Amino acid sequence: MKKNITVIKGDGIGPEIVTEAMKVLDKVGAKYGHEFSFHEILAGGCAIDACGKCLPEQSLDACLTGDSVLLGAVGGPKWDGVDKNNRPERALLGIRSAMGLYANLRPAKLFSQLRAASPLNPEIVARGIDFVVVRELIGGVYFGAHDTVEENGEKRATDIMVYSEHEIERIARTAFETARKRRGKVTSVDKANVLDTSRLWREVVTRVSREYPDVAYSDMLVDNTAMQIVKDPSQFDVIVTENMFGDILSDEASMITGSIGMIPSSSLGETKNGMYEPIHGSAPDIAGQNLANPIGTILSGAMMLKYSFDLDEESAEIERAVSAVLDAGYRTADIMDEGGRRVSCSEMGDLICSEI
Amino acid sequence: MKKNITVIKGDGIGPEIVTEAMKVLDKVGAKYGHEFSFHEILAGGCAIDACGKCLPEQSLDACLTGDSVLLGAVGGPKWDGVDKNNRPERALLGIRSAMGLYANLRPAKLFSQLRAASPLNPEIVARGIDFVVVRELIGGVYFGAHDTVEENGEKRATDIMVYSEHEIERIARTAFETARKRRGKVTSVDKANVLDTSRLWREVVTRVSREYPDVAYSDMLVDNTAMQIVKDPSQFDVIVTENMFGDILSDEASMITGSIGMIPSSSLGETKNGMYEPIHGSAPDIAGQNLANPIGTILSGAMMLKYSFDLDEESAEIERAVSAVLDAGYRTADIMDEGGRRVSCSEMGDLICSEI
Ligand SMILES: CC(C)[C@H](C(=O)O)[C@@H](O)C(=O)O
Ligand SMILES: CC(C)[C@H](C(=O)O)[C@@H](O)C(=O)O
Repeated sequence: MKKNITVIKGDGIGPEIVTEAMKVLDKVGAKYGHEFSFHEILAGGCAIDACGKCLPEQSLDACLTGDSVLLGAVGGPKWDGVDKNNRPERALLGIRSAMGLYANLRPAKLFSQLRAASPLNPEIVARGIDFVVVRELIGGVYFGAHDTVEENGEKRATDIMVYSEHEIERIARTAFETARKRRGKVTSVDKANVLDTSRLWREVVTRVSREYPDVAYSDMLVDNTAMQIVKDPSQFDVIVTENMFGDILSDEASMITGSIGMIPSSSLGETKNGMYEPIHGSAPDIAGQNLANPIGTILSGAMMLKYSFDLDEESAEIERAVSAVLDAGYRTADIMDEGGRRVSCSEMGDLICSEI
Repeated sequence: MKKNITVIKGDGIGPEIVTEAMKVLDKVGAKYGHEFSFHEILAGGCAIDACGKCLPEQSLDACLTGDSVLLGAVGGPKWDGVDKNNRPERALLGIRSAMGLYANLRPAKLFSQLRAASPLNPEIVARGIDFVVVRELIGGVYFGAHDTVEENGEKRATDIMVYSEHEIERIARTAFETARKRRGKVTSVDKANVLDTSRLWREVVTRVSREYPDVAYSDMLVDNTAMQIVKDPSQFDVIVTENMFGDILSDEASMITGSIGMIPSSSLGETKNGMYEPIHGSAPDIAGQNLANPIGTILSGAMMLKYSFDLDEESAEIERAVSAVLDAGYRTADIMDEGGRRVSCSEMGDLICSEI
């Protein structure tokens, strides 16, 4: 199989971690006889530095015409002063929107080797953490109009949260399909006691749920969900929610695993051309020091093989390799534990390659 | 001192827990020579049942003309089918708004006696949890326009998130004043990389912070905050944030203490007439069984004495009594632990009274 992967190394630790993921993809490609060609493009802060635009046109074109996008991380305090429409994050939002990537899957899964790293108490951890947040990614308050006006010497800012039925319907389907391949349980999260968008959300997800009688379905208020994720994460299989709630809850969910450097994500739309990235940020404080954990990006590569290229075996091979390296006790700084063997970012990439 | 307290027992466990708080207030009043007269009104589900309106006019009048409001909890699945403008929760929002209660303080504090109940691991708990979420309560997406329209056979729902400078300025001041009486640290939470309201929020809070050079100030993105609350809650002293973020984060914050039944809250505006309520809900599943934990409501009464009536000593007396009863090992069902002495809701109220 031949695939063109569009690569956005991005800012901060982005280049380091993406380099390792490319190494691993190359190794898997060699073993299974696939050819992955990487097309590196600029987006985010580095693009602003290079050409003044967070998302140059040819970069977006490359995303749209390639077979899939692999991203490290974008942003950093360096670009805090940039105009709001050209911030590094706008590149991310621009790509998501232009590619129509409405479904963002963020697994929250405890690695058995890293149990001790969870901030939750051992009893809760023992019950298991293995769920996925299905976040709607191109609607809601992120993509409604944003406006700031001045009236009688006082500024007033407005953001519009908006959802149409078809936007909710398709993400609901993603959630129920995902649950079918997992433990068959969907929790839809909203704030239906306050928001119209949430009432519509609940109405539509409930309607879609009737097409999936084999999947257990319930709804939960967002404030309660923020509590339940900490209190008893084992109750969740698939959480489906709108963009902003998904942003907040998926970060909380990843944190309870204790190893946010390990967590990949996928963003997909109607086609197989998706975007894959670790859920952590660009960590400018440790950039360029070969300290970062590349596993979140490497596992994002594994997700790409599975979801965009249907290479299930190759994807599982990467996951197995990661697991073997963790079993052997190798740890980057962020997941270092007693008795662990401390390795650098590139050493971690090499070790994972050597298991393939 | 003579004070008229407007009492909303509300729904579910509301009546049980408020009864205990009234007992405790009576006892403190008797000891210190104050007269608290209670004026019970209907609001929430019980008001819908009684007269078809979640917030009858005379109820709202009583809130506005009394010296302070004590509330149990409103709502429950029984009223799920009610029109959105008459839901039990609308009563709460209506009172908050009509009374101008823009500042909602929600302490997240670990009771040393209930350390083991925290869902966080012992190392994190040992560093301490003692912060307060200052939530803006009458602005943002809660109070912007809500609308659902149908176009070409498809529904579209909209909620408007809106903030003006003066709304942000006053809550920022509350946060900095609160921090001055605590450990002198404010973390302002927003999503300034996406929202105009958040960019204005950050601009205004930063400006206000310059008037408080003695208070350490920083900002944090909401998704990161959802992680940090779990990862290292000891870093926080005062978190200030907008309405919706405050709803989500304060629930998460209360849960990490492991004893959500214990946590009070205050809501205040420009005057001393405020509203005090536990942060937990109406728990219809255990209503009427004398099982609920009244401590959150009792401590809300203590907050009322302090913030609305300036009765600091009397307020501290209630807190001391609660602590003594916990030290003696008495526990309601929700906080029951090994070696604890299980008591009912009313027994807990009696025990606390007997310590005053
Ligand atoms: C960078 C930011 C705009 C983005 C988001 O909020 O979607 C990030 O937090 C994420 O979750 O991918
Ligand atoms: C009942 C609901 C409207 C309310 C809110 O969201 O403000 C509640 O969750 C709270 O936090 O007091």
